[in-house]
Amino acid sequence: MNQVAHNKTDVEKIENAFQALDKKRLWQRLETLSTYTEPARPWTRRAFSPLFSEARQWLAQQMRAAGLVVRIDSAGNLIGRREGKRLGAKPIMTGSHSDTVFDGGRYDGILGVVAGIELAHALADSAYELEHPLEVVDFLSEEPCDRGISCVGSRAMVGALTPAMLALMDSDGVSLAQAIDQVGGLSHELSSALYQKGDIHAFIELHIEQGPVLENKGMAIGAVTDLVGVRSYTLTVLGRPDHAGTTPMDIRQDALVGAALLIQQNFQQAARLNTSQCYVVATVGCASVLPNSSNAVPGRVEMTLEVRSNQLAILEGYGDELFDTVREELQALGLRLHTESISYGLPRHFSDAIVEIIEQSSYCLGYESMRLPSGAGHDAAYLSDIAPTAMIFVPCLQGRSHCPEEATTADQAFAGLKVLMRSIMAVDKHVF
Amino acid sequence: MNQVAHNKTDVEKIENAFQALDKKRLWQRLETLSTYTEPARPWTRRAFSPLFSEARQWLAQQMRAAGLVVRIDSAGNLIGRREGKRLGAKPIMTGSHSDTVFDGGRYDGILGVVAGIELAHALADSAYELEHPLEVVDFLSEEPCDRGISCVGSRAMVGALTPAMLALMDSDGVSLAQAIDQVGGLSHELSSALYQKGDIHAFIELHIEQGPVLENKGMAIGAVTDLVGVRSYTLTVLGRPDHAGTTPMDIRQDALVGAALLIQQNFQQAARLNTSQCYVVATVGCASVLPNSSNAVPGRVEMTLEVRSNQLAILEGYGDELFDTVREELQALGLRLHTESISYGLPRHFSDAIVEIIEQSSYCLGYESMRLPSGAGHDAAYLSDIAPTAMIFVPCLQGRSHCPEEATTADQAFAGLKVLMRSIMAVDKHVF
Repeated sequence: MNQVAHNKTDVEKIENAFQALDKKRLWQRLETLSTYTEPARPWTRRAFSPLFSEARQWLAQQMRAAGLVVRIDSAGNLIGRREGKRLGAKPIMTGSHSDTVFDGGRYDGILGVVAGIELAHALADSAYELEHPLEVVDFLSEEPCDRGISCVGSRAMVGALTPAMLALMDSDGVSLAQAIDQVGGLSHELSSALYQKGDIHAFIELHIEQGPVLENKGMAIGAVTDLVGVRSYTLTVLGRPDHAGTTPMDIRQDALVGAALLIQQNFQQAARLNTSQCYVVATVGCASVLPNSSNAVPGRVEMTLEVRSNQLAILEGYGDELFDTVREELQALGLRLHTESISYGLPRHFSDAIVEIIEQSSYCLGYESMRLPSGAGHDAAYLSDIAPTAMIFVPCLQGRSHCPEEATTADQAFAGLKVLMRSIMAVDKHVF
Repeated sequence: MNQVAHNKTDVEKIENAFQALDKKRLWQRLETLSTYTEPARPWTRRAFSPLFSEARQWLAQQMRAAGLVVRIDSAGNLIGRREGKRLGAKPIMTGSHSDTVFDGGRYDGILGVVAGIELAHALADSAYELEHPLEVVDFLSEEPCDRGISCVGSRAMVGALTPAMLALMDSDGVSLAQAIDQVGGLSHELSSALYQKGDIHAFIELHIEQGPVLENKGMAIGAVTDLVGVRSYTLTVLGRPDHAGTTPMDIRQDALVGAALLIQQNFQQAARLNTSQCYVVATVGCASVLPNSSNAVPGRVEMTLEVRSNQLAILEGYGDELFDTVREELQALGLRLHTESISYGLPRHFSDAIVEIIEQSSYCLGYESMRLPSGAGHDAAYLSDIAPTAMIFVPCLQGRSHCPEEATTADQAFAGLKVLMRSIMAVDKHVF
């Protein structure tokens, strides 16, 4: 038997590995992981919640079942590792995240984690050996946690999680550093990057598109060329809380009226700047009112503003243009605007070599593919700073995401997994 | 000694009672009660909270120290009673409420409760006997509780707390009926009024003005002639939650953008309708966003709208005019508006006889007074439906209320107490 195995051609080995991929197992793992949700508001599994930790325990079991050796790194990332043939070779990483926004995330993130596990499982079952170690990563808190920071685990991995971010408190007074420690990380080791440039051979992340392009064009696979930059602000409109029954309209300093002005201006400005060359979206997604009482004039409104574009000039200028537009009108209403930039992720251009490998892999497997940019942020953004990186997108229903209706099919997911496996096998042979 | 007491003239008895009023004790009780606050957000003591119950235990002690017999009625109102001379006489009631909105309520409500206790204390110390029993009431949940209903205790007292209101749940799934029972009430007895017309001799409530009129005019006392009506709505803007990075501006159905439109229109409409003859204020005081995530397009915004006016026609038409104005623009944004009327309190005209007694009492005591309407709602609104009722206002600093800065002085509060005592003594002799 050994004799036969050694004589197998590469083509046979690859075929065996592909035959070991199990669509049903992939889909069942996806469905099982998605059921770790707050029952009253599917599909919600917030990073750092007890539910999140339960889901990770289940994920660790699945990793072990797939032959992976499981660890949690200092950043709180859950990692399953399969050793490679070549001594001292740098790992190939794949994976995504298992946390969700509120109400949405049935496939967002978890597809990439579960596909990585199935890939490892098939390699184990078919005894396919990569040259490089393979690491399947569930990055910690890709979605903005309660402290407003996204991509906590991937930032920390490349040294982009600052001490100021680590010190941010949630509403219970728990710092991000404490929260990382509570999920098994070692936050005091995060003052420097966990990996330097060259420490990782390549990173490929499989994800649902979260937009309507692939479905509209009838494409099975997207080879993601770059990621839009994301700039986030906290905006605070400060007025004066007063009794809503006794304070005449003309002497009110109603912070919610000012916030409304800003929300509308933002919507108009983003719509105006967006063109076919220049992708711009800008969103006020969170708003909270103080004192938030039906009979009190709002004295303070806190909001988040998130601007995304593939153009650096837009990211640089968008906020100031908006704030300058509304400032005079806010002053006339007796209001002040306080703005704070809380994160600024630059646009990222992915590895041309890996994008080409993904296209070729799709072609070999008989899937139609197209190149496209990603309007969503991903852990791949941070990995691309230190390693050759790209992403594979599969379509999702009507482009819906971050909502309960988010959907993809077993066939679409499986196509993405096959392209991921073929790409990783190719990347394994590639010298960057 | 008995001989001397019986020979005392009415003037002497009244003088003794006034001399027994203790400004320092009044002020200390006010300050002590106000310290029952959430430490992190003064001055917050929400109805039905553990803090509220603690404060009421302290209040019950103070009532007993003032010679009152303490009970909690079926509506959860805390009542201290002093018997009168005349057998079978109906009670004179005074009092207000000890609960607060979030962040504001250092004097709002509690002045009327604590002044009632001091009044009883002085009557006891000076052995002054009223013809009628005196009841000092701490009405339950005058401020809108988490279920959106204000004046819970005074509504129930007069039979205006409906079964639908009693069934309303808070966010923990606790009904208003259960909450009333938890503070010592008997909600199953609230299907009919606790008092019928004629059961109460008179009701007088002392309160800070919560507006700027008395201070601006240099008046110590306001004799309140009527109360504005208050109509409240829950407004829900329904859009579609989507990923904020991948959903182009032109296909978004952003509920927060629609809410912003409505907030601005409301502000403009109320400002336009308000004239010197017609008092109008309208406030969006609460707003909550779903999913409320910085990277998700808001799919749903819930708001409260509260309209107040002394003109019935305004209360009738205001909401529909506003909703009609915005509906088309909301539709163009792919949004729907759902409106629900949650409460509607008609304007109330107070007892001319008591208003006159308050004016005369002020004059006798050397205080300048003026007649004015109240822009704020009060428990007195409901009591006025079944009993001769009026209110006494004292100034508050810059008219600020429902905010941490709300303030009045010991002298201003004491003036109000003296006018309250003189008015109750006069009402005691008055045949309505």
